[in-house]
Amino acid sequence: MALKHPSELAASPQPERRRAALIGGGVIGGGWAARFLLMGWDVAVFDPDPEAERKLGAVLENARAALPRLYDAPLPPEGRLRIAGSIAEAAAGAEWIQESAPERLEVKRAIYREIEAAAGPQALIGSSTSGFKPSELQVGAADPARLFVAHPFNPVYLLPLVELVGSDATPAVMLDRAAAILDGLGMRPLKVRREIDAHIADRLLEAVWREGLWLVHDGVATTEEIDDAIRFGFGLRWAQMGLFETYRIAGGEAGMRHFLQQFGPALKWPWTKLMDTPELSDQLIETIAAQSDAQAQGRSVRELERARDANLVAMMRALKGTDWGAGRLLNAVDGALGAGALEGESLVTIDADWLDGGGAIREARLAALFESATEACVGWISADIAEGAAGRYAQTKSKTRRLASPAIGDRASVATRIASRRGAKLRLAHALVRADGTALATGESELTFVCAETREVRPPSRPVARRLTEIARAQASID
Amino acid sequence: MALKHPSELAASPQPERRRAALIGGGVIGGGWAARFLLMGWDVAVFDPDPEAERKLGAVLENARAALPRLYDAPLPPEGRLRIAGSIAEAAAGAEWIQESAPERLEVKRAIYREIEAAAGPQALIGSSTSGFKPSELQVGAADPARLFVAHPFNPVYLLPLVELVGSDATPAVMLDRAAAILDGLGMRPLKVRREIDAHIADRLLEAVWREGLWLVHDGVATTEEIDDAIRFGFGLRWAQMGLFETYRIAGGEAGMRHFLQQFGPALKWPWTKLMDTPELSDQLIETIAAQSDAQAQGRSVRELERARDANLVAMMRALKGTDWGAGRLLNAVDGALGAGALEGESLVTIDADWLDGGGAIREARLAALFESATEACVGWISADIAEGAAGRYAQTKSKTRRLASPAIGDRASVATRIASRRGAKLRLAHALVRADGTALATGESELTFVCAETREVRPPSRPVARRLTEIARAQASID
Repeated sequence: MALKHPSELAASPQPERRRAALIGGGVIGGGWAARFLLMGWDVAVFDPDPEAERKLGAVLENARAALPRLYDAPLPPEGRLRIAGSIAEAAAGAEWIQESAPERLEVKRAIYREIEAAAGPQALIGSSTSGFKPSELQVGAADPARLFVAHPFNPVYLLPLVELVGSDATPAVMLDRAAAILDGLGMRPLKVRREIDAHIADRLLEAVWREGLWLVHDGVATTEEIDDAIRFGFGLRWAQMGLFETYRIAGGEAGMRHFLQQFGPALKWPWTKLMDTPELSDQLIETIAAQSDAQAQGRSVRELERARDANLVAMMRALKGTDWGAGRLLNAVDGALGAGALEGESLVTIDADWLDGGGAIREARLAALFESATEACVGWISADIAEGAAGRYAQTKSKTRRLASPAIGDRASVATRIASRRGAKLRLAHALVRADGTALATGESELTFVCAETREVRPPSRPVARRLTEIARAQASID
Repeated sequence: MALKHPSELAASPQPERRRAALIGGGVIGGGWAARFLLMGWDVAVFDPDPEAERKLGAVLENARAALPRLYDAPLPPEGRLRIAGSIAEAAAGAEWIQESAPERLEVKRAIYREIEAAAGPQALIGSSTSGFKPSELQVGAADPARLFVAHPFNPVYLLPLVELVGSDATPAVMLDRAAAILDGLGMRPLKVRREIDAHIADRLLEAVWREGLWLVHDGVATTEEIDDAIRFGFGLRWAQMGLFETYRIAGGEAGMRHFLQQFGPALKWPWTKLMDTPELSDQLIETIAAQSDAQAQGRSVRELERARDANLVAMMRALKGTDWGAGRLLNAVDGALGAGALEGESLVTIDADWLDGGGAIREARLAALFESATEACVGWISADIAEGAAGRYAQTKSKTRRLASPAIGDRASVATRIASRRGAKLRLAHALVRADGTALATGESELTFVCAETREVRPPSRPVARRLTEIARAQASID
């Protein structure tokens, strides 16, 4: 909690921006581009598709509307995007080069040859391939050691998982370097212990896909019914705990060994049709596509993407509250981002859901903002003197006043000062000030010191009173 | 939005409670019991396990801490739980009888014989079986028509999905009756079009399970790594959209048909090992169990359950905000619950996260509560006169004051009145009043009428002014 006015905060010196190259700018390449850019990297994209720039713009627009909402700390300033005219032009000078080309081995190998001719000796080369093994990609490479699989998941700008896979020719230190960079992008690199076709997640997905195709083929369920069977049931479970942890719980008090022994016989039952694959005939394709059309109820892919992103952001933020899984990762990134330039100042970005129908900041948002400032202040007042404090300040009253209506995307920060102090009462004054200096809102919190033992209201204990005097003095010197 | 004081609200007459019988009170049966009880049904449980009552108590404790938090409307008063001494004793007089016994066909059939001897002629009999087909269960039943599969997902008190499966002997009207009851429990019945072994969801789960076992067996990944591959990636996706809708989006602008045609060849690749199943040898069981132990980091199954429930509640509540999937279902249930006895009054339950460290209601909660009351009020003031309104009230200032600290679980309601009105200004007074009549907090909102066209502040348009006079008059007659 800073007691400084935001204008006091010197802008931190702009560090040299890191550079990434994306070969292929479709849904996956565009998602990578968005994540690098929003995390402050400069990005060069090469894609031979004449529509590439428009498609990339659409992905970026989605990402800008979603990724920053995952975090409470502000992201670094967005990097610069450049459309390159060739693979060589994109790759030159890049620290990370990511290939997201179609799944054809010869195409990918040809791309690597062009990358290697232009890239610096330290550059890392990742492939988004969902199926090929790194040893297959490395055939013909001048330096196979730095070419590995970095397989992300759509939408790349929101889902954290990246499967990192090397071959026998990949030194461990290379994957360590890659993992550190992905950590910095807020991602969750998962080093796969042994290369296999389709890595880990797509093996599981492929299994579900085959079974799903059979269910439609056999008329057991429509695409919508299968989707509902997932999202109203085990899909919710898997967003926070995976297969094994869920079954550990299902086993109950008897434990995992007992669960496995009990489950053994079921493996012998002919439950799945996975021993075989249905032929993807024109008729089956038509059935699935028609069912999928009905399910979409006229919503475009763009609309579905926005709905998906809103859901993912909301759920991942919910998991921040429980500090679990993807939410725990977000909290860690928040810590890393906030610990940098901001000196504890809580900088916020005005989001669409901050504003009511009339464009004014919602009362509840303002109250939450000022309340956490108050809490931080109370924490700061009694920090390290908890034992001697013999009580604490509790908020009794509050007021807020909106002064100006911000625009979505505006950045602002809360500044808090001690307004007055008399007996048991302490009044804090808050201001929400936009980066340009405009005060958007003010607020006041009235607190009362309560004795820990008797729960009676009384003037603060000596160490607390002394701390308050120090703060007021520091404040006066700033004013 | 009620403008009445909560004491004005007559308690609705207590309807006759509906009765359910649970045969088997383990994790699944206990979960069913909890859902029925918390939704106001009386429940009788029979389970021969001498530990049954204790285990049931543990499930109920979890459910009471989680299920009510999914909803904003209050649940009906909890039903009465009775431990029955026999299947017949449990089944007598029950409207729904749910069998959650071990997966052994002869055991289940013997249970149905006992149920049928005691149950009323109209009683529905559901089975929680995850594997058997209803036609298999119905063999030997006196009335096969009313015996069907109602397969839920753990935790039954939170996850909405129930697979409803009938055989050729099941009349459609029977499944309709079952679905209506499950709807009333806040669940999402999914009628399966054709009976097959393991229905729908467990087919998909079984496929993933087999592939997961191979990945551990082959040393490609540990249980924790597989779980991370799920929960940081596609698991998040599947909590809100299923397999097909996700792939529809992945196909991008080219559409679902194109996606399927492109995906066709991959089905021929030997990506999965599903043509075979790994032997669940002692060694593989030991490997999995040991990895699962390491992953749990000493957390007990009880602790994991609580973490899981907190995550599920948080994510499902997040999906209420986007009105999607499981969240949309919750909103519908809220509507149904709220539309009953409460006449729009917003009754709330004080939850642990409402209170700060000192036991006082958090400022942000209070502000949100009063803000939504203000918004409801503004909506009510201009309802049906939007066209003539030519402007709207926008909140400019607010104040809150905490008067008393509630206990967790207390129920309270917000009452709002027009405090004053002069020119463009309108002041609303809120009170948060506990069910026993204690005022927990008060608040005041100041609003200003803003012209829709010029954005200038001015007195409200005639229809709005007239409505305000009506409200004030109605208020006076109540006071």
